[in-house]
Amino acid sequence: MLNISVEHKKEHLYLEVYHYYRKLILENRLLPGSKMPSLRKCAQELKLSRTTIENAYLQLAADGYIIARAQSGYYVTDIATKQHPPAPEKHAADDPPCLYDFASSGVDRESFRFDLWQRYIKSALRQGDRMLSYGEPQGEKDFREVLADYIRERRNVICSPDDIVVGAGLQSLLQILCPLLLEQKTVSFPTPSFIQGSTIFEDYGFDVHYRDKNCDVIYVSPAHMTKWGEIMTVKRRLELIHHAQANGHLIIEDDFENEFVYLQKPTPSLFGLSGGENVVYIGSFSRLLLPSIRVSFMVLPPTLRERYQKKADFYNQTASKAEQIALCQFIRDGHLVSQTRKLRRLYAQKLKALSTAVRETFGTDCQIKTGAAGTSLALTIPCTISGSELKKKAREKGLRLEILKETPEDITLVLSCSSIPVKDFLPACQLLKSVVEKNASAACF
Amino acid sequence: MLNISVEHKKEHLYLEVYHYYRKLILENRLLPGSKMPSLRKCAQELKLSRTTIENAYLQLAADGYIIARAQSGYYVTDIATKQHPPAPEKHAADDPPCLYDFASSGVDRESFRFDLWQRYIKSALRQGDRMLSYGEPQGEKDFREVLADYIRERRNVICSPDDIVVGAGLQSLLQILCPLLLEQKTVSFPTPSFIQGSTIFEDYGFDVHYRDKNCDVIYVSPAHMTKWGEIMTVKRRLELIHHAQANGHLIIEDDFENEFVYLQKPTPSLFGLSGGENVVYIGSFSRLLLPSIRVSFMVLPPTLRERYQKKADFYNQTASKAEQIALCQFIRDGHLVSQTRKLRRLYAQKLKALSTAVRETFGTDCQIKTGAAGTSLALTIPCTISGSELKKKAREKGLRLEILKETPEDITLVLSCSSIPVKDFLPACQLLKSVVEKNASAACF
Repeated sequence: MLNISVEHKKEHLYLEVYHYYRKLILENRLLPGSKMPSLRKCAQELKLSRTTIENAYLQLAADGYIIARAQSGYYVTDIATKQHPPAPEKHAADDPPCLYDFASSGVDRESFRFDLWQRYIKSALRQGDRMLSYGEPQGEKDFREVLADYIRERRNVICSPDDIVVGAGLQSLLQILCPLLLEQKTVSFPTPSFIQGSTIFEDYGFDVHYRDKNCDVIYVSPAHMTKWGEIMTVKRRLELIHHAQANGHLIIEDDFENEFVYLQKPTPSLFGLSGGENVVYIGSFSRLLLPSIRVSFMVLPPTLRERYQKKADFYNQTASKAEQIALCQFIRDGHLVSQTRKLRRLYAQKLKALSTAVRETFGTDCQIKTGAAGTSLALTIPCTISGSELKKKAREKGLRLEILKETPEDITLVLSCSSIPVKDFLPACQLLKSVVEKNASAACF
Repeated sequence: MLNISVEHKKEHLYLEVYHYYRKLILENRLLPGSKMPSLRKCAQELKLSRTTIENAYLQLAADGYIIARAQSGYYVTDIATKQHPPAPEKHAADDPPCLYDFASSGVDRESFRFDLWQRYIKSALRQGDRMLSYGEPQGEKDFREVLADYIRERRNVICSPDDIVVGAGLQSLLQILCPLLLEQKTVSFPTPSFIQGSTIFEDYGFDVHYRDKNCDVIYVSPAHMTKWGEIMTVKRRLELIHHAQANGHLIIEDDFENEFVYLQKPTPSLFGLSGGENVVYIGSFSRLLLPSIRVSFMVLPPTLRERYQKKADFYNQTASKAEQIALCQFIRDGHLVSQTRKLRRLYAQKLKALSTAVRETFGTDCQIKTGAAGTSLALTIPCTISGSELKKKAREKGLRLEILKETPEDITLVLSCSSIPVKDFLPACQLLKSVVEKNASAACF
């Protein structure tokens, strides 16, 4: 349940205290309502620092085992009698815990240095004066400066910090962008599956099409053309830019997962190739850091920037100021670059290992598609039940699946490697096989 | 520049180290490009813990005095030669630092316990497993449960956690709400000055009116009817509800600053009075905690909730997951209630003291309006120059003002007490007077 990159002995200690009391409480050896020993007394008895005890207590409180009463102390809750300690991960009431999450859009558990991020957040919160006021509507200035440097170096996107708008995730940015698009009425998405994007355009009255190059707005993710990591070739990128320029279309370049292009150098951005006219560039960090950090940004071309500037003060910033300040310094100190390098290497290895495990499990009776990027592969296997049924049955066995396509004979799944450790690939694939086969035979009767 | 509630000796120590090096750097005794002593060496020499030194270095880096180079150490930046150390508060390039901010929408500097909030954030970040995945679109479930309890007890808003939607500030909520309002085309706001609200409705194609009770949607802030804290009477509240119910209008109740109703018990919420039909309740914490914490929530009535549920998965959560988890536990532990009590007492005292200082400075030559709530008073004084000119001249003297109304003879200002310490009220008022008088006499020539 607690899975923290523990580097310091101190951290170990607080966890030991935490588990010690958690056990006492769950086994009803500390009864509901009883008072926990004071920090001072507990520290004395266990011969540990007060801070260590306090950290353990805070964690126990955060997890619902004890509760603080002002000016009195900590008391044991009735969590043990209720017999439902908080689950490590939320899931629907009747679902068993998820053993293997093939549908994950999260990050690899071991890859993120929580201790490091905590230090940056802590340092941001120390900037008391900045935290006392609302953030700049457009995003913190120093953060935008760092972003401008970062995308110039990494993506050849040349822009001023004034062209950048920060927001709490892609949708917050689109909600600012859509009202600026006065002449555009139609938008094209590469696939119907990107509902998060199309919902916002629909909310603003746009007609949503798919793969229609004659729309006023063309939304593309060049490094994530398909779920299994196909990327847009440079030739296709140039064609798209020329077509858009010739017809006065606006391109929205969602540069999602451009960092995870393995088989070649990251392809040039559309923004860079086009010189920044007619392209809105969107970047995010959810796959690099933590999905729970809600910070994204967009770079506006000149005309849209002018329109935005006139309205900028009408919008409040949505992204957390502390997270912006922390991320700003995190990037300055080079951690984002090294984290990207580390993840690219990690996911390339994991995808290869997953592919091997799938092949080993399903033999020749399957098709595997991998792209040049991303964290997923596409697996096509014979299956006689429907996708939604398979998904449900798999979930009952502790397996989360994402269905990409289904025909009467077979089914195509997207298997993400990001949240499953390498050592679990084979058992996860075997579990998947057993679910598919059980239903294949059941369907024969 | 650093203004932290320092309670522990440890905190003092790191600040001392910070200031020691900061001075050396600004006085050019540590030259740009030179390497800082290693953490270990510095800790040995100063006979302090490595953590203390590290905290000081992190703060120096956060403020731009030193920079980390991977696998090498910390180096002094060229901040001293550039002669512009980062200002404690951002302001336009040519403006002098702001001495007294009468236009503040921030919180009292002394009122917020940064150390406490830091502990909760730290504890939230320790929940590694939760941080590794995207947040629930509607907001974290345990947080919504706590919110439901909180508003039931404090505001008589009776709802289920499933009726609550969390978002990064009011606008993020309105951006989800507006597309749900299928039958409504017109919205009424109490005043044209609340641009943040009207912008979103305009973005979604609504006709925006002011004080027009025949609109499809009536947006009100019952505890913040005017900038100087007038509140809506219960009689008026009931009339509004009956009128809305009779005509099928939807009320949006923005319960902003309901906590700061001083002269009487907080008035009942419209949501509570109406039984929750036809009312959307919106709550936020920006005036209670930190404006930089972007967490708000809304309670949807049944029909809108049903519509929302169908689309819920199409929206990503905008509020920071760490801040939701932290705030959840902060409320559970009773800190929000005590913080509210503390602030209500503080602002009531401050408003009274400000009123006295204004009266003392301007004598009978002014009109002061105060309401039953809020953190501001309205001051009308004779003034022959325009509001924007007065604002500019005041800003040059280090005074930030908000103009409410102007006539050829006089001007009405909104003076907020929240960001100015009590001891500065009199000098701030006197400075204001000198700016007004200088221009009054200048206008005579």
